[in-house]
Amino acid sequence: MSRKLYLEDLHVGRRLHSKRVTISAEDIIRFARDNDPQYFHLDEAAAKDSMFGGLVASGWQTGALSIRLLIDSADPPFAGGIVGVEAHIGWKLPVRPGDSLRVEAELTRIVLPRRHADRGFVSMDIATYNQRDEVVLTQRVTVVVFRDPARAGVAEGSLSAD
Amino acid sequence: MSRKLYLEDLHVGRRLHSKRVTISAEDIIRFARDNDPQYFHLDEAAAKDSMFGGLVASGWQTGALSIRLLIDSADPPFAGGIVGVEAHIGWKLPVRPGDSLRVEAELTRIVLPRRHADRGFVSMDIATYNQRDEVVLTQRVTVVVFRDPARAGVAEGSLSAD
Repeated sequence: MSRKLYLEDLHVGRRLHSKRVTISAEDIIRFARDNDPQYFHLDEAAAKDSMFGGLVASGWQTGALSIRLLIDSADPPFAGGIVGVEAHIGWKLPVRPGDSLRVEAELTRIVLPRRHADRGFVSMDIATYNQRDEVVLTQRVTVVVFRDPARAGVAEGSLSAD
Repeated sequence: MSRKLYLEDLHVGRRLHSKRVTISAEDIIRFARDNDPQYFHLDEAAAKDSMFGGLVASGWQTGALSIRLLIDSADPPFAGGIVGVEAHIGWKLPVRPGDSLRVEAELTRIVLPRRHADRGFVSMDIATYNQRDEVVLTQRVTVVVFRDPARAGVAEGSLSAD
């Protein structure tokens, strides 16, 4: 029994809530070293003189972490994973060492493409909150979600629209 | 002499071109382990059964790598670094092990906020190309760029508009 979340299980208005995760200075620095080696992501002392007044996480790290929280919040997990098609991201507030993040998401649109009968494009509005319930990041993402092969025959007629 | 790139050095229409960088399976897997642990980013064999037919890089990795290429392409470097405010990202094609990426960017807009006399918001259209000159990623980003304190007095009048 490894049930998965398929397109047929989703509907516009469905909401997802994640658990919290705390980001450490070590997490921030490790990500930055490989992916975004700017001094305000790398060096606590030097970052004091930056526009942030201290060490902050790379926006790529907080974006990836938010989607990871979202994926982990889906129970059962999305069949086939989460594959982004496009995203509009707003970085609203800095994320600092010790901040504890969680996400809330709402499904806003499901589009069934004519050319791919096995999948749909699902749009979501995602907000990432810190421990003070301030929004640090917003994302409007469109991801690919697959249809359940076991249910494909039944739903074919009603799901073939654009 | 460590000259830096300030807002006063930029103009709409300015173009930036990066060098190329090749991404390896190890790079892809290392990023995914920490940040996006989905099987098609982690396991070459398992990824064969995914929608991609093989291992592909996380979209967060290609996004971060593209901005890093852009930052490195600026000579002199941006004063104060590159801090994203918002981004619209389109993931157009998978990035696979051995792919060699480069970016081209064009400045499309410079906005001078009334509330912060020391900075501007610079928008750029960025395209990331693979070794076949296919666009794998597009980004329309808005970043913060600082004004040169040494030149602030002179330009104050002409740059204070919104």
